[in-house]
Amino acid sequence: MAYINENYLKLQAGYLFPEIGRRVNEFSKANPEAATRLIRCGIGDVTEALPEACTSALHGAVDEMSNRDTFKGYGPELGYDFLREAIAHGDFASRGVEVSPNEIFISDGAKCDTANILDILGHQNRIAITDPVYPVYLDTNVMAGHTGETDSGGQYEGIIYLPCNAENNFVPAFPETKADVIYLCYPNNPTGATATKEQLANWVTYAKENDSIILYDAAYEAFIQDSEVPHSIYEIDGARNCAIEFRSFSKNAGFTGTRCAFTIVPTELTGKDNHGNAHSLHGLWARRMATKFNGTSYPIQKAAAAVYTDEGRKQVDDLVKHYMGNAKILREAACNSGLEVFGGINAPYIWVKTPNGTPSWDIFDKFLKEASVVITPGAGFGAAGEGYFRISAFNSRSNVEEVAMRIGKFNW
Amino acid sequence: MAYINENYLKLQAGYLFPEIGRRVNEFSKANPEAATRLIRCGIGDVTEALPEACTSALHGAVDEMSNRDTFKGYGPELGYDFLREAIAHGDFASRGVEVSPNEIFISDGAKCDTANILDILGHQNRIAITDPVYPVYLDTNVMAGHTGETDSGGQYEGIIYLPCNAENNFVPAFPETKADVIYLCYPNNPTGATATKEQLANWVTYAKENDSIILYDAAYEAFIQDSEVPHSIYEIDGARNCAIEFRSFSKNAGFTGTRCAFTIVPTELTGKDNHGNAHSLHGLWARRMATKFNGTSYPIQKAAAAVYTDEGRKQVDDLVKHYMGNAKILREAACNSGLEVFGGINAPYIWVKTPNGTPSWDIFDKFLKEASVVITPGAGFGAAGEGYFRISAFNSRSNVEEVAMRIGKFNW
Repeated sequence: MAYINENYLKLQAGYLFPEIGRRVNEFSKANPEAATRLIRCGIGDVTEALPEACTSALHGAVDEMSNRDTFKGYGPELGYDFLREAIAHGDFASRGVEVSPNEIFISDGAKCDTANILDILGHQNRIAITDPVYPVYLDTNVMAGHTGETDSGGQYEGIIYLPCNAENNFVPAFPETKADVIYLCYPNNPTGATATKEQLANWVTYAKENDSIILYDAAYEAFIQDSEVPHSIYEIDGARNCAIEFRSFSKNAGFTGTRCAFTIVPTELTGKDNHGNAHSLHGLWARRMATKFNGTSYPIQKAAAAVYTDEGRKQVDDLVKHYMGNAKILREAACNSGLEVFGGINAPYIWVKTPNGTPSWDIFDKFLKEASVVITPGAGFGAAGEGYFRISAFNSRSNVEEVAMRIGKFNW
Repeated sequence: MAYINENYLKLQAGYLFPEIGRRVNEFSKANPEAATRLIRCGIGDVTEALPEACTSALHGAVDEMSNRDTFKGYGPELGYDFLREAIAHGDFASRGVEVSPNEIFISDGAKCDTANILDILGHQNRIAITDPVYPVYLDTNVMAGHTGETDSGGQYEGIIYLPCNAENNFVPAFPETKADVIYLCYPNNPTGATATKEQLANWVTYAKENDSIILYDAAYEAFIQDSEVPHSIYEIDGARNCAIEFRSFSKNAGFTGTRCAFTIVPTELTGKDNHGNAHSLHGLWARRMATKFNGTSYPIQKAAAAVYTDEGRKQVDDLVKHYMGNAKILREAACNSGLEVFGGINAPYIWVKTPNGTPSWDIFDKFLKEASVVITPGAGFGAAGEGYFRISAFNSRSNVEEVAMRIGKFNW
């Protein structure tokens, strides 16, 4: 037998969403009648149809693929110019932010990108991760061998955890140990919190003073309602020298099953070798993508580009309005039932303090058994998520109204 | 600055296809008239339209995505059952080969899969790679830190090279050093060679005796014409205990720009940890894909499944016939011009010995300058590829006939 990557054995078996699935299945089998009323507000998956501009672009691209004269074989591994240019203009230049098309790398998902970015970074880096956190940041570092085993609290040795809680408004304090790589995500999954320009500027200053790289996940930027909240870390002076940004079409345009995303690596961003020599991370990422990836499907890239047409923009705005309308209803229902509620204003997630310090898996079970509603227990996102739970606003309006009604019936 | 993965610095700058692109651009600028007659037989990219069964399935799936009642969000990370079942039946059960749907992992490309498979394997493994070879196998091992620097012949320290040449019919001898992981690709890219059942059985025996894993790339199996040549390594008894197989829709169904592929990891296949304990590679790969990948686009999976319909099969057969007809024409033209020719019978690549021992980049330049034809120099695939060049049969019939005519005019 060949050797396996033993780091995988350190991964905790109970990955959040499979464990949720297991409990929901068990409940549904035992309570077939209640199961018919089940409403899922757990996983952050969109529910509404793709924008018409996107499906129309998809049909057009499929027609191109049907004819040898317009057929497309291998595309550029880093993405088609038409899409890179549409993004550079639509998401950045139009907001006064400097990002050039060749700094935009098209992929099939932000999950892949936030996982794969570790390929170009050294194993010596000290990694800082917010807590609670999107589990992929943590698990991919475990797989890459950047951690030891877990302690009794489920935290991995070698990771610098940055707790985010109500006390710090879910924007972490700087780590006590110097961090080389820092994962930040705003609007945040799971807490729904945003960072102000000043808070992000402080992190950019920290990164520059400590020679760190910020891995900035902005997958939820489309949900920002407040004009003062930054959509991109590149709105902060100096971020081009210290940050990589991840974006996605999954949540704004409903591409969770269609698959398209992108990563921005500014040309001036560098990392160092063991001798302290600087190397372009843009060049390393380009080499990584050209060698281990073969480009995103041509029809899918055409669909993504349609997001930036006038029609596409309007349709995406309508989707965002729909989900943020849901968020408002859920937020108010939770507030009115006496719960302490965060998020849900610039993000499609409502982050709720469990009543009376109830453990979050107990609240999960209570929602499931008493209301046939699936939420996500905060503990699944990390130790500092204990004492909270997440309600996702990705749903139909009628489901959300029904969930709000059921929340109103709880006695805490 | 954070630390980079310094292994990237060991990669040779002149990656094959960019270097070809550079020379072609330079030639085209200097010879604009000749450039209008340029025919590319270099990269193995398909030229013909997608099968109608696939585009029709794509249109249907896009319509599903247009309606919230049939809309698909996140799919299963390992692939939809409809596609896994179609493959298990169409590619395996129908040929009497045992592969179950849950052993089939759907992805967006065999390049990604052959690269990513290293994620689950340990860094202690000794890696054997055929020479010449598809550069991705080698480069991804360099990136993962499995090699030292290159020697004066361009070979990486720490890799066990397995030379494939006319003397061994392009099926390598067993390595003198024990190898833990062995990359095999049949029908072969770039040589167009196939392995007989007996030759593959010998490799399976080697793997079992040496506790090795074979990474078997069968991306070109659809081009096999000879009924005696195995399409899958699982046609060999015992292979399920020692082999992972990679397949793709890129070449048979023309998905190079559409993106779909799959990997087979048998449930009984294991790797060992440092204590010698066995662990399921199927479980590790499932965890890898669920954590670092978010599934292949739903419409694309529907298109891939259409390959297995009666209509789809017929259309794919027609594509294969077209490209293999091209291969025959190119093969005969090269033979008739006095060259020593291999491949092109069960594979869409013709592998040609350079006349009079001419270096392969010189032949590349000769084809470009004297015939306005782009071929691939064998040296680009590894040291043992020197003295050979590859002609790709992926082209229109008229281009291939023109290339055959131009080959006929060469004086070697």
